[in-house]
Amino acid sequence: MYDVHKIRADFPILSRQVNGKPLVYLDNGASAQKPQVVIDAVTQAYAMEYANVHRGLHTLSTIATEKYEAVRGTIARFLGAADPDEIVFTTGATEGINLVSYAWAAPRFEPGDEIVLSVMEHHANVVPWHFLRERQGAVLKWVDVDGNGNLDPQAVIDAIGPRTKLVAVTQMSNVLGTVVDVAAIVKGAHEKGVAVLVDGSQGAVHQPVNVDALGADFYAITGHKLYGPSASGAIHIRKERMAEMRPFMGGGDMIREVHKDGILYADPPMRFEAGTPGIVQQIGLGVALDYMMGVGMEAIAAHEKAITAYAMDRLTGLNWLQVQGKADHRGAIFSFTLEGPAHPHDISTVLDKKGVAVRAGHHCAGPLMDHLGITATCRASFAMYNTTEEVDTLIEALELCHDLFA
Amino acid sequence: MYDVHKIRADFPILSRQVNGKPLVYLDNGASAQKPQVVIDAVTQAYAMEYANVHRGLHTLSTIATEKYEAVRGTIARFLGAADPDEIVFTTGATEGINLVSYAWAAPRFEPGDEIVLSVMEHHANVVPWHFLRERQGAVLKWVDVDGNGNLDPQAVIDAIGPRTKLVAVTQMSNVLGTVVDVAAIVKGAHEKGVAVLVDGSQGAVHQPVNVDALGADFYAITGHKLYGPSASGAIHIRKERMAEMRPFMGGGDMIREVHKDGILYADPPMRFEAGTPGIVQQIGLGVALDYMMGVGMEAIAAHEKAITAYAMDRLTGLNWLQVQGKADHRGAIFSFTLEGPAHPHDISTVLDKKGVAVRAGHHCAGPLMDHLGITATCRASFAMYNTTEEVDTLIEALELCHDLFA
Repeated sequence: MYDVHKIRADFPILSRQVNGKPLVYLDNGASAQKPQVVIDAVTQAYAMEYANVHRGLHTLSTIATEKYEAVRGTIARFLGAADPDEIVFTTGATEGINLVSYAWAAPRFEPGDEIVLSVMEHHANVVPWHFLRERQGAVLKWVDVDGNGNLDPQAVIDAIGPRTKLVAVTQMSNVLGTVVDVAAIVKGAHEKGVAVLVDGSQGAVHQPVNVDALGADFYAITGHKLYGPSASGAIHIRKERMAEMRPFMGGGDMIREVHKDGILYADPPMRFEAGTPGIVQQIGLGVALDYMMGVGMEAIAAHEKAITAYAMDRLTGLNWLQVQGKADHRGAIFSFTLEGPAHPHDISTVLDKKGVAVRAGHHCAGPLMDHLGITATCRASFAMYNTTEEVDTLIEALELCHDLFA
Repeated sequence: MYDVHKIRADFPILSRQVNGKPLVYLDNGASAQKPQVVIDAVTQAYAMEYANVHRGLHTLSTIATEKYEAVRGTIARFLGAADPDEIVFTTGATEGINLVSYAWAAPRFEPGDEIVLSVMEHHANVVPWHFLRERQGAVLKWVDVDGNGNLDPQAVIDAIGPRTKLVAVTQMSNVLGTVVDVAAIVKGAHEKGVAVLVDGSQGAVHQPVNVDALGADFYAITGHKLYGPSASGAIHIRKERMAEMRPFMGGGDMIREVHKDGILYADPPMRFEAGTPGIVQQIGLGVALDYMMGVGMEAIAAHEKAITAYAMDRLTGLNWLQVQGKADHRGAIFSFTLEGPAHPHDISTVLDKKGVAVRAGHHCAGPLMDHLGITATCRASFAMYNTTEEVDTLIEALELCHDLFA
């Protein structure tokens, strides 16, 4: 039995008030809150077990290294990767996707080579490819969504041409909540011999993931959205792709030997992890993923499915509010605009007075905003600890907005 | 009056034991321990004030953004930079130097263009330049140190030729403790119209820094060595150089507009900060730097100078031990080898049994190891909280080693 109140009690910030009202935190798409076990792990790591990792033989360094390296296995287990050496630690999906752009794509893209993208991609999965366009003459091929925000996997596959070298697609839109059938895209792209990068920044938070079954070449996650510390994260890269990659950042830990006139790089995954890493951040991420697996990803998905249905029902009941995105398969991320003069920024500010935290803006999705013909939305995004009562509070606050601005 | 015992009481880990002995932490060159105020700031940020920064209008996002952005000013104050917009947040010196390599150097280096380096550079200030050699035909010009580990600034300046585009040099060797006269190097290089990158990873920890007076084009620091969280850091970049840089990593926050067919980048420094940053890490770094400034950088330098003199006196009194590096101007980092069969790794392991944490290995300084004709040293590196009594404990433990292996 999913006990959301027990889960809420694990997150200290959820007991605080904002503007004299209980916090209703619906900005999870931007970043999730942290359970006490994660905070405790971070505190313990700094207060009693801290040292730099690797190459150290003293006790503290050994403790830190063991705890840090164990997280590679935890991430592999969370993602369904049989081989922990296919996990590269990053500071988040942004660094992960830039790693692919610089280390795998840049050396192999000729002018005219193409990347197929959906119009829903987050800037983290757009700007690194624009770099290849600006610097190397790569061509970005965009696949639109339909009026409800559905992305047809076949349309993505059909967009692949003889010059296409990569498909880069989100598993779940951070604006529309659309869940993309990335398995179909991977299958179709691989039949055409084209690699696929999946941006799992949102997808991995809300549903079970199995990267080995999925078969994507690159699968990026962001720790701070997974209830872990800021600047934690990882990317799963299939061994074959890793072997094709040159190093990205250079520094300590990613080398075997450095001389004046030459260099020998370490084997993957270390080859792609330069310098002192986010030791304590990754230790915290491991605890966060263990926490999620303890609750159960299927259970989290079921809870959020119920929230999604309830929120969709209530939001679509407001005839002065427009929900952006009504895909057949979607998660608990709701972007909306209000009729009348209320700008999303105004709405966000009014909601905040009621303790309700939502985000307003372009949500780092410029191409999608262009496609929708708008410049901004309000976005309420839910997590494992949110409740239907919080949906009610959101609706009440929105009704107040409507009255204020009508 | 510098009260080292009061300072020690601020660092919780220093009260713990290792192998039944009080911890003597002499691995500060690899990473420093954290004062309670830093740990508390991290806890508070996660437990009560956490949200993603920028673009958020709700209360928690505003709090997080204000605390995070204030750190830019704190770092500027710590480094003596009049303009906080010359500070770019990074995850450490490794990312900072790679930023310079990818965003400033890579687009402007032609085959045969040169980078002048000292042989003492850390891999973080070597490997990014090897990339330019491997990928673009850049030439690395190495300047050796003398038998005592002194680096003659004039030798660096004399190495600058008509094809030299950058001098990249450490302010303080992480192996020999040598403090380099980077001001003289900057002055001489600038007279020849050549930019200078200073790796302040060690230098900024142990002495007052004023980047505006120094005038270097790039000055990189690493937060975790400055008593701050892992994966925190920054690089100071002069405005003129920033204007010459293209973006490095792409994603959210570093753009003004993103469309299907084009992109407008944000102004510096945001242009160089892609994606959700290390929010809590940088907040912690700000507290760490405030803590250091509270103690006083001159006072820290004076304390460590006394430690240096005492440790040098005691270490050189052991006629079976060889200190690597006796530069005229040096800080409290001591690399040494023992006569006889004891490998540095063995020594480190024996010292650990006595609670003494030192590092053994190449210290990410391959070219220097080649120059010295050795493969590894033991390194004892001191910090603001170390004492002369801890030097005595180190010496006793080394004498035990000598007896064991003699």
